[in-house]
Formats: sequence, structure tokens, C-alpha cells
Amino acid sequence: MSTSRLEAFSDGVFAVAITLLVLQFADPEAKSGQLLSKILGQWPQLVTYAASFLTVGVVWVNHHAIFRGLRGIDRTIQFINLVLLLAVVLVPYPTQLLGHYLNSGENGAVAAAFYAVVMTIMSISFQVLVIWALTHPKLLRPEVKARSVGSVVPRFGLGLVTYAVAIGLAFVSAPLVVALFAFTAIYYAFNQIPWMTED
Amino acid sequence: MSTSRLEAFSDGVFAVAITLLVLQFADPEAKSGQLLSKILGQWPQLVTYAASFLTVGVVWVNHHAIFRGLRGIDRTIQFINLVLLLAVVLVPYPTQLLGHYLNSGENGAVAAAFYAVVMTIMSISFQVLVIWALTHPKLLRPEVKARSVGSVVPRFGLGLVTYAVAIGLAFVSAPLVVALFAFTAIYYAFNQIPWMTED
Amino acid sequence: MSTSRLEAFSDGVFAVAITLLVLQFADPEAKSGQLLSKILGQWPQLVTYAASFLTVGVVWVNHHAIFRGLRGIDRTIQFINLVLLLAVVLVPYPTQLLGHYLNSGENGAVAAAFYAVVMTIMSISFQVLVIWALTHPKLLRPEVKARSVGSVVPRFGLGLVTYAVAIGLAFVSAPLVVALFAFTAIYYAFNQIPWMTED
Amino acid sequence: MSTSRLEAFSDGVFAVAITLLVLQFADPEAKSGQLLSKILGQWPQLVTYAASFLTVGVVWVNHHAIFRGLRGIDRTIQFINLVLLLAVVLVPYPTQLLGHYLNSGENGAVAAAFYAVVMTIMSISFQVLVIWALTHPKLLRPEVKARSVGSVVPRFGLGLVTYAVAIGLAFVSAPLVVALFAFTAIYYAFNQIPWMTED
Repeated sequence: MSTSRLEAFSDGVFAVAITLLVLQFADPEAKSGQLLSKILGQWPQLVTYAASFLTVGVVWVNHHAIFRGLRGIDRTIQFINLVLLLAVVLVPYPTQLLGHYLNSGENGAVAAAFYAVVMTIMSISFQVLVIWALTHPKLLRPEVKARSVGSVVPRFGLGLVTYAVAIGLAFVSAPLVVALFAFTAIYYAFNQIPWMTED
Repeated sequence: MSTSRLEAFSDGVFAVAITLLVLQFADPEAKSGQLLSKILGQWPQLVTYAASFLTVGVVWVNHHAIFRGLRGIDRTIQFINLVLLLAVVLVPYPTQLLGHYLNSGENGAVAAAFYAVVMTIMSISFQVLVIWALTHPKLLRPEVKARSVGSVVPRFGLGLVTYAVAIGLAFVSAPLVVALFAFTAIYYAFNQIPWMTED
Repeated sequence: MSTSRLEAFSDGVFAVAITLLVLQFADPEAKSGQLLSKILGQWPQLVTYAASFLTVGVVWVNHHAIFRGLRGIDRTIQFINLVLLLAVVLVPYPTQLLGHYLNSGENGAVAAAFYAVVMTIMSISFQVLVIWALTHPKLLRPEVKARSVGSVVPRFGLGLVTYAVAIGLAFVSAPLVVALFAFTAIYYAFNQIPWMTED
Repeated sequence: MSTSRLEAFSDGVFAVAITLLVLQFADPEAKSGQLLSKILGQWPQLVTYAASFLTVGVVWVNHHAIFRGLRGIDRTIQFINLVLLLAVVLVPYPTQLLGHYLNSGENGAVAAAFYAVVMTIMSISFQVLVIWALTHPKLLRPEVKARSVGSVVPRFGLGLVTYAVAIGLAFVSAPLVVALFAFTAIYYAFNQIPWMTED
């Protein structure tokens, strides 16, 4: 199977999942003169929306970077990719819950932990995809083989550790979890994997 | 008509249908301290979500495999493909019903049977598409002609029989239907049709 | 502007619009033992779903056929195409209304007429797109120039007249309108425009 | 990174965001004989739907025009593009609010201002994207370098000023804001940037 159609399908799923994030915003049914305060009161939704959008966006960018380094795919990669997408498609649900319960004490902690769990599963799938690709030289373009294994795995591993830590952090402060994800996404947006920056 | 645009359109439909599966998850409107048990109580939705995601994902992978063996399409294939997509797009609805009624006795049986009926229609359309392609040599790439007819039809036919059996099984146990679909999807994910594995 | 990116964008819009048709199906919240009759009671939604799916599917197929005859596009075509898509994206709404009110006397007639109006606007946009393309030879591939004008316009014009007649027919019988759209879609699916069938 | 995959992903997001605009239309649950007046009463939704559809459609067309002038992209463009898409994906929400509150006095003014703010953020992101591209000659195709800087920035800047003015105008008349966006979209649809019109 060529990489291009798997990429096209994955792109479609990423694009739709990221766009469905908007559905967490619901008309607050404001009474006369109340709409402004109702909209301002939706700031937790806006913040979780941005955090999820950037996180999924950056996973997509890195997904693309990995696939650019491949010259072919096997069935295992196809299946890992399906599990990765299964997590990506789920993201709008924990995002909606976190937006709703962000300031709700114990429920906020549960929502933030659930959010971090889904993101961690996404991150693990991605990490497994990367490791599988790097340890199967026949899948790689010749020019990426040598320099990648050492540099790529630790970098995504760092993200994975951050996400896993966020699960525990949820019980300290839910807003901190959102901030951590937004910050991590922006960090990765500006600091991408080597074989992407060459051209 | 070239195969590539029909594939692009089908990919789009598959990607959106698979992503809409997340919409079955609704905010449980939990009271203080109740969110964790509410989320855990949504395990039937999570299981049907995964079963449908994997099933549609595998149909998509096989759909791609079939189209890679074609060098052209005719109007009949176009129409069969439209009927196939008509079933694929419907999938989120029986998935949602099965997630909701999985443990509801008689309603659970009806929901599982309805789920299996939609999946069986999808499978029949796919089977008809394969048979039409294989019996019209002018649609096939020369290299796939000889070896495919005998090996491909029985393999997908097995899936079709499994799905049809699931309709009856629904009245024995709804959760068993979900397990059967998840298992079948994973089986097909790792065991694909011959002309796909050549490159 | 090349035709390929306009086609890719249009394909995306067609694919999403067709997939959102499933959202008209809502969980009927059945009491114990009532789910089967509730699902069977949703046959109007199933019928309008199929009619809209096939109609939009066939418009998409013909849209593709037209664009295959073009070697370039101008701003007018781009704008007409945007108006066409504006109607296509709206289709899930009248479909939902018609599914809900199909058997509701006066409301059914209004829902069917509204459905036919949106479809007629879609059809007019498409007809205008075809006429604009055929009367601007610099947009056409040389091989389609001569034989198309006479044969294509009357054929789509027939569809347009059928749709417009359906607006009036809505006040006679709403189910007849659904049947007419389903029949027209199947007719066009099997009987496409000349320059498409050549290869 | 090649421009083509970033374009494909952006196209997907634009297509889905534009299609989700239909979800603001909800079944008015009309009593017998009331459906026609209920549908006619939804004209504000229809108008805001058309205004948002055309505005996002035109941003998409111009987005394409800009990317056609690029021969490569860097991480900054990728990140600016993500922020642009973050605004595009949000558009269905202010559109829904404006459709609901258009004639609701103070709430209408707030909804219109919120709508204009989101559109202005979208416009600023787009403007920053254009300026970044034009001031980094290594990203541009050689043939667009010379003539573009002077002509492109002022043209989009005009749109940006219009959108920003609409924020204040919202407190004079909400319908005027909708009309201004629809008019601006149609103006830009017929009057595009130079490097697009060459072929």
C-alpha cells in the first residue's frame, strides 16, 4: 500500500475531528441583555477548544513528518495508525467534558484526568508508530535511516511523559492541565523533528 | 472515469462517517462528585464506538485494496459504491442505539439486530462490488486478473456470513454481537487480501 | 486556477454534506420492548435519507463529469460553484424536515415543497454552471467542445423541470415528491452525460 | 514540508467548517399548519448562513491563491495557518448566535460584535500569513516576488479594516453587520489577487 492514500485518509479524519471541536459550544439561550456575560462565561470552552485544536494540529503535523520519512507501509503500521485515529476522533468528547466541568471541583479533576488519559493513549499510539517505523528500515527512505532513531524517540517520549504526568496533575488543578497541553502544543509547533526541517 | 476521484470521494465519506461516531457520547450532566461513575457507566458506548470504528476502518482498507486492483470503473461500480457508502454513512446511528440499549433486554436485542442488519447491507454491497469487479476483466489491472477470483470472494464471503449470523445472535446476547464485530475487524485488519500485500 | 483544487474542495463539501444526513436520525428513547416499533416508525427518515443521499451523490458524479471536460476555470465558475455548494450544504435541513413531517398533512406539503425548492436551487446552479462552461470555449478541453452543447443542456434541463414540478406536486402528495427524487437520482445514476462515458 | 499537504489539510478543515454551518438550522417542531410560518421565521439563520458561507468560501479561495504563489513553507507559516484555521473552525458558533439573536436588541448587538470579532481574528491571521510570505522571498515562487508586496497587502488590509469597523457597527445595527459581510464576500469573490488571475 502506498503511503499517500493512508495519509489522505488520516488527513480527512484529523480535519473532521478538529472541526467537530466547535460543537461543544452551545447557544446559551440568553435572556435580554445577558448574552455578553453568557459568552464571557464560556471562556473554559474557548480555552479547552484552543488546547485541543493545537494539540491535535501538532500531532497531525508530526504525523505528516513521520510519513514523509516512509517509503512504504505495512499492515502493522496501518493498524497502529487506526488505533491512533481512534483516539484522535474521541478527542472532542473529553474536550467538551473538560470545558463544562473545568471549575467544578472533584468533577473538574475527573474531567481533566479523563482528558489527559485520552491524550496519553493518542501519544502512546503515536510513539509506537514512530518506533515501529524506525526499527523497520525497509519502511524508511534511505536518507532518514541513520540520524533518526536516536533523536526522534526521546523527543516524542518527552511529550508522552508530559501527558502522563498531566493525569496525576488533574487532581491538583484542572486549569493547569489545560495550560500544560496548550504550552506543550506550542512548544512542539515551533520545535519539530529533524527530518522535517531539512527542506 | 478515473478511479482516483471516486476513491477520493469515498475516502472523504469514510473519514467523516468514522469521525461522527464520537457524537454518540453526550455530556452526562453529572452532579458534584458523580462524573467518574457517569463516565465509567458509558463503557457500552466506548465498546460500540471501537467496534464500529474498527469495522468501518477495515472496510475502508479493503475498499482501497480493491480499487488498487482496478484500472477503470464503470457506471455500475459507481452505483454499487454509492449504495455501499449509503450504508457506511448510516453506521453512526445503529452504533448510537446499540451503545444506549446494550444492556436493555429486549431493546438491546433489537438494537443489536438492527446494527447487524446495517453492517450486513454494507457487507453485501462490498461483496457485490468485488464480484462485479472480478467478473469484468476490462476493469482490472492485468496483473491481478488470474489469481484473485478464487481467493477474494470466499474471504469476504466469510465476513458476510459472520455479519448475517450476528443478526440472529442479537437475540441471544447483544454484547456478544459487539464482541463478534470487534473480533472480525481485528481479524481482517491483520489478514488482508492477496493483491494488497504484494508491495 | 487549476480545476483540481476546486474539485478537491467541492469533493470535501459534497462528502461532508452527504454524511451529515445521518444526523436526522435521533435516538427515539424507547421504553422497554418498544424499540422495534420505534425504529420501524422511522421509515420516513430512512426514505428521505436515501432520496437525498442518491440525489446529492448523482449531482456529485455529474459535477465531476463536467469538471473533467474543463481545462481551466474562471472567477465566474468559481462563484457559481460556491452558490451550488451553498445549496448542497443546506440539503440535510430540508431532508430532516421532510423526514419529520412527511405524514403530517399540511405541514408535510410545506416540508416537501421546501425540499423541492432547495433541490431546484441546487439544480439551477448546476445548470448555470454547465451553460457557462459550454459557452466559454477557452475553458473547455478541445475534444469536448463540439458535441456537448446540444446534448448536455437539455438533459440536465429535464432534471431541473422535474424538480420544479415537484414543488407544485408537494401540495398533492409529500411521499410522491420523495419517490420522484429517488427515481430521478437512480435514472441519472445509470444514464450519464456523453463525455463521461467515453473512457 | 511541501505546500500540497498543508493545502490538503486546510481544504479539509475549510470544507468541514463550511458544512457544519447547516447545523444551526433546527427542526422548529411546528404544530399542524404552522410549518410554513416557522420556516419563514428562520430567515435570519438563512441570511447569516449565506454570509458566513460566502465569507469562509472567499477566504478559502484567497488562501489557495496565496499558497499557489509559494514554493515552500516554514514552521512559522504552519503555525500562523493553524491559528487561521482555529478561527475558521469557530465560525459556525458566532454564526449560530447571530442567526438566533439578530433581532434581539442588545443581545443582537453583542452577537453581531462577537461575530465580527471572530471574523476579524480570522482576517488578521490571514493578513499576517500574507505578510510573512511576502517578506520571506525564499518561500515565494520567483515569478510572484516583484509585483505582489505592494498590491496584495493593501487589498486584504481593506477587508481587515471593514471587519474591524463591523465590530463597532454591531452596536448600531446587527442586520447591517450581516449585510456588510455578505457584500464584502461577494466583492472579494469577483475581485481577486493579481497572481491568481494570470492563468
